[in-house]
Amino acid sequence: MADKITIAVDAMGGDNAPHEIIKGCIDAANKNVKIILVGKKNLIESQKFNFTDIEILNATEVINTEDSPIWALKNKKDSSIVKGLNLVKEKIADGFVSAGNTGAILSCATILLKRIPKINRPALATPLPNINGISLLLDSGANVECKPIYLEQFAKMGSVYMENVMGIKNPRVGLVNVGVEDTKGNALTKEAYEILKNSNLNFIGNVEARDIPAGIADVIVCDGFTGNVILKNTEGVAQNIFKMLKTELKKNFSRKLGAILAKPAFINMKKKFDYAEIGGAPFLGLTSIVVKAHGSSNAKAIKNAISQCVNFIKADVTKKIND
Amino acid sequence: MADKITIAVDAMGGDNAPHEIIKGCIDAANKNVKIILVGKKNLIESQKFNFTDIEILNATEVINTEDSPIWALKNKKDSSIVKGLNLVKEKIADGFVSAGNTGAILSCATILLKRIPKINRPALATPLPNINGISLLLDSGANVECKPIYLEQFAKMGSVYMENVMGIKNPRVGLVNVGVEDTKGNALTKEAYEILKNSNLNFIGNVEARDIPAGIADVIVCDGFTGNVILKNTEGVAQNIFKMLKTELKKNFSRKLGAILAKPAFINMKKKFDYAEIGGAPFLGLTSIVVKAHGSSNAKAIKNAISQCVNFIKADVTKKIND
Repeated sequence: MADKITIAVDAMGGDNAPHEIIKGCIDAANKNVKIILVGKKNLIESQKFNFTDIEILNATEVINTEDSPIWALKNKKDSSIVKGLNLVKEKIADGFVSAGNTGAILSCATILLKRIPKINRPALATPLPNINGISLLLDSGANVECKPIYLEQFAKMGSVYMENVMGIKNPRVGLVNVGVEDTKGNALTKEAYEILKNSNLNFIGNVEARDIPAGIADVIVCDGFTGNVILKNTEGVAQNIFKMLKTELKKNFSRKLGAILAKPAFINMKKKFDYAEIGGAPFLGLTSIVVKAHGSSNAKAIKNAISQCVNFIKADVTKKIND
Repeated sequence: MADKITIAVDAMGGDNAPHEIIKGCIDAANKNVKIILVGKKNLIESQKFNFTDIEILNATEVINTEDSPIWALKNKKDSSIVKGLNLVKEKIADGFVSAGNTGAILSCATILLKRIPKINRPALATPLPNINGISLLLDSGANVECKPIYLEQFAKMGSVYMENVMGIKNPRVGLVNVGVEDTKGNALTKEAYEILKNSNLNFIGNVEARDIPAGIADVIVCDGFTGNVILKNTEGVAQNIFKMLKTELKKNFSRKLGAILAKPAFINMKKKFDYAEIGGAPFLGLTSIVVKAHGSSNAKAIKNAISQCVNFIKADVTKKIND
C-alpha cells in the first residue's frame, strides 16, 4: 500500500448517481486520499464540478438493479462495477465503493477479487445503530440462502472487525432467533447455535430482534434474508416514527413551541439513525476492501463510505481475518 | 353462540401472570362477556380480587416457555392451555386468550380445535402499527418453516380478516422480500411470488421491510421466522427510540421545557406502538377463535385481547375464512 490511498468509486450506482456521487468524491479527496471515479465519462464531465483532484475512468455500461448479477458479470464487462473492481484487482486502487446493485457487486467482487481462504461466502456487514452505539449486522443481504457453517464464518469475521476497527475487546456475538431458548428456531438457526456454542467466540446465544436496538450484542449474525429485513425494518420504523412525531408536534401552538425548544434533541436522534452519517457497509471475506453504500446515498453518505473504506484499509482488516 | 359470549383465559401465561391477567379479566367481564379463568385455583384466589363476575377452572399444571409444544400436549394435560382449549372444544367457551408459550398454544389448539379444511397451517396474525393505521402481519411466529403454498393461505386468511374485521375493502397484499423486483429473494419467496401473482387476491408484489411502517400494504405475508423478526424489531426500535429521546430531552433546561409543552405529542406516539393498546394476535386457520396476547401483557393488554377475541367471534371470521 502506497502512502496515498487510492479508492475507486462507482459513479453510476444508486438513486442519486452521478451527481451526488461525484460531489461526495470531491469532498472526500485530499492529499492522502486519491479518488478514481468510474463511469460514463461524458455524463460525469457534463456535471458542473471542478475535477482537478479526481481521476475519471470511462466505463460505457451500467449494471442496473434489475440485472441478474451473473448475467451482468458476463455481459456488462465495460460497466462501472466491473471496471472499478478491476482497478482493485490490478492494484491500481486499494478499495472500491459503490451504491449500486448489491448482488452484482458481490458476484463481480467474488470472482474478480477472490475470497479469503476458508471463507465460503463474503458477507455484507452493516453497522446498525443501537441505544449505546453500533452493532455489526451480518449478513445483511449478500446471501439470502445460508448454510449453518456460513453463520459461524460471519460471526468470526464480524468479531475481527469489531475488535480491530471499532476497538471492542472480546465482542459479544448473538444469533438472531425467534426466542432465546436453545431449542428455538428453524433448521438453520438450531444447527448454527450448536456450531457457535462450540466455537472460541464470545457467543452469548440466541438474541431476539426486539433486543438488537437495545445493544444486546456487538456482532449480530443471521442469514442475508433476515439481516436485510432487520436492516430495512430498523430504517423504516425510525423514519416513520420521526415523520409521525413531526405531524404530532405541529398539531397546536404549545407543541410547536415545545418542538422549537427541544429541537437539538430531535436532531441528535435523527443523526443516530441517518445512514448518511453511518456510511457504508463492507463486504467481509474478500481479499480486498469493497464497501457498499446505501442505495439512496447522498454526497455525505458517499464521503463517509469512502472514509470508512480508507479506515478499513488502514486497519488491515482483510489480513486480520485471514490470520 | 349464546347472547352472552364466554371467553376462557389462561391465568398462568406471560411474564405478569397471574396478577395482571386476573385484573385484565375483571376489567373485561361485563353483562355481555363472561370470563372463565383457567389456572391454579389456590394461587388465583390468593390474589386479592373480587371474583364475583369470574368463574375459575382449576388447572394444576403450567406449560412454560421452555417446554416443547408436542411434549407439553402429551405430558401436561392438566395445564391451563390444554384445559382452556378444551372448554372451547366442548363449546363451553366461544374463544380462548393466552399470553403463554406461542408454540404450545398453536400445537394444542391445532390438535384440540382442528384446522379449517384446506388450511395447512394456522398463522399468528399480528396487527402491526404503521404511519396510517394498522397492517396485519402473518405469519408472525407460529410456523418458522413454511412452504410457498402456506404463504398464499396466509394471504387469503389475512385478506378476509382485514375486510371483515377492519372494514378495508380489497386489502392490498404484500410479500416480504429483500427487493421489489420479481427476481429477488430466496427459494420460498420466489415461488410464493408466482403463486400470489396468479391468485385472485389484490397482490401488490414484493415489499421491502423498510416500507412496512409506511403502510405500503394491508396484509404483510411472510414465513413465521421473518414475521417474528419484523414484529419484535419494530417493537424494539420504537421502544429504544423513545428511550433515547427521553435521555436527549433531559439534557438541559430548554429541552426539558420543550418536552413538557409537547408532552401530549409523545404520549400519542407511544400509544401507537404500545402492544397493550393493540391487544392480541389471533391464530387464523383454526375452527375456533384463539388469541395470543403479548408475553409481557399487563392488565390493559389482557383486557384489550379479550375485547378483540369478542370482536372476532361477533364478526364470525372463522366462518368467513371457511367460506
